[in-house]
Amino acid sequence: MKLVECIPNFSEGRDQEKINAIVAEAQGTPGCTVLDLQSDSTHNRCVLTFVGAPDAVEEACVKMAKKAAELIDMRTHQGAHPRMGAVDVIPFVPAMDISMEECVALSKRTAERIWKEAGIPSFLYEDSATRPERRNLADCRRGEFEGMPEKLLQEDWAPDYGERAIHPTAGITAIGARFPLVAFNVNLDTDDVSVAKTIARTIRASGGGFRSCKAIGLKLEDRNIAQVSMNLVNYEDTSIVMVFEMIRALAERWGVRIIGSELVGLAPAKALLDCAEYYLKLEGFDARRQIMEYHLIGLGTEE
Amino acid sequence: MKLVECIPNFSEGRDQEKINAIVAEAQGTPGCTVLDLQSDSTHNRCVLTFVGAPDAVEEACVKMAKKAAELIDMRTHQGAHPRMGAVDVIPFVPAMDISMEECVALSKRTAERIWKEAGIPSFLYEDSATRPERRNLADCRRGEFEGMPEKLLQEDWAPDYGERAIHPTAGITAIGARFPLVAFNVNLDTDDVSVAKTIARTIRASGGGFRSCKAIGLKLEDRNIAQVSMNLVNYEDTSIVMVFEMIRALAERWGVRIIGSELVGLAPAKALLDCAEYYLKLEGFDARRQIMEYHLIGLGTEE
Repeated sequence: MKLVECIPNFSEGRDQEKINAIVAEAQGTPGCTVLDLQSDSTHNRCVLTFVGAPDAVEEACVKMAKKAAELIDMRTHQGAHPRMGAVDVIPFVPAMDISMEECVALSKRTAERIWKEAGIPSFLYEDSATRPERRNLADCRRGEFEGMPEKLLQEDWAPDYGERAIHPTAGITAIGARFPLVAFNVNLDTDDVSVAKTIARTIRASGGGFRSCKAIGLKLEDRNIAQVSMNLVNYEDTSIVMVFEMIRALAERWGVRIIGSELVGLAPAKALLDCAEYYLKLEGFDARRQIMEYHLIGLGTEE
Repeated sequence: MKLVECIPNFSEGRDQEKINAIVAEAQGTPGCTVLDLQSDSTHNRCVLTFVGAPDAVEEACVKMAKKAAELIDMRTHQGAHPRMGAVDVIPFVPAMDISMEECVALSKRTAERIWKEAGIPSFLYEDSATRPERRNLADCRRGEFEGMPEKLLQEDWAPDYGERAIHPTAGITAIGARFPLVAFNVNLDTDDVSVAKTIARTIRASGGGFRSCKAIGLKLEDRNIAQVSMNLVNYEDTSIVMVFEMIRALAERWGVRIIGSELVGLAPAKALLDCAEYYLKLEGFDARRQIMEYHLIGLGTEE
């Protein structure tokens, strides 16, 4: 049974009725199961996590895009998070028995229907990107909703689906298949945020650090401690153990210790099984063969 | 979808045709999937791992018991491993969406049918045990095939199913539901097996150590190193981290270090996720909510 995980982000984080109306479209689509919904009023944004068969996920995305276009007016939208559309981004992640190539194909079918049925143009990003400069979501979104009409007229920035003009109220959407993202934070026993910021700059790809690590340093005001907050965009490339042990070593420079960590949202089991393998020094470990749950979801391999 | 893991042990580890004929009964039962088969000629024993819906697993066990009784003659069986029957033991382990109580009920239905349809008596053991002294498989099996006719006549050792006499050639079987067992070995950088033996005696339940840990010390002759070999009969009670860190601390006494470890056969993801949680100092981690695969097999919990 093929399953895709889909994590659409909508530019509404305050009006619960509108959020519910959008999510109801996924809940009401046979073959889709909603796993998580997080909304943030500062960001004025909500993030839905659901899974389903590819066709069901496609159907749900088209219906949610229509509903979001109906309920959200980007001309009056304000929020701390960068955004360019009512449906800001729709990532598809291979979850079970499905290849990245199939998720790329799904993203293109969905983008075409969202253009034809909802009139919203889109960029294909990450593994679906049609050119290297569109892989990174931040590059696609640069200029945000307000700057998009002008950006779409630039030679390199015609949408992948739709014309060189945004939907008047719903803007434009980024749609693409990507590897599962692991959001992982490490907490330090210091109230000095500059330690976390320096570590973040050192370990992230943009600072010459780990290729698949994005990181910022911030302060948890309620606990008066500093935190290195990360997105690992490919945990097989840059693992949790790599960033954890690097942070441990770097923090030592200031006599600072790791007091805890956090996994935010959902993650694939493999990201943590790799950690157990490292710390236990497991020899010859093969998760797909030895972990019962992989056999239960049809991803197990036999000896 | 309810799934049970079943790991029957048969007293045949040399004749591949006989082994294949027995395993074919599980492979040919609709609703059953064979995951693993290991045979050992020194032990003269094979261990099959398969999963399936409860009714399918019951059917496969009855068919395999009949086939084993037909092909294996315990009167001439010799092997290093203790044994009392052609089908020596049939453990049922809850795998997906099923309770221990349901597995206990399944073990009793299976035991009744194996008596009625194959004429093989049985003891109920582990969570299915009808009295405390039958929980431990080793206690049920003490006396082995040769001593069973006399043992069954003792007041306390009437079979749970069947009369006070073994099947003439197939002996008697232990049948029961149990928690998933984790077979975990730790390798030491010493060729002195006495270090491993001393550590094993210290950490195992029978030596006053961890309640759910069975352990022996042995030497890996091919690598010339000592190993602590363990069965964790309840990894939620006695975790991998507990035994690993205890062995690390005890080995230090002789200046010995851990150089590796091994997970033998299949294990539930949770046994290793718990290790990642410990070493990463994860705060507020909830595997059932945060690990994608639990959602895919219907064991996820939402916030």
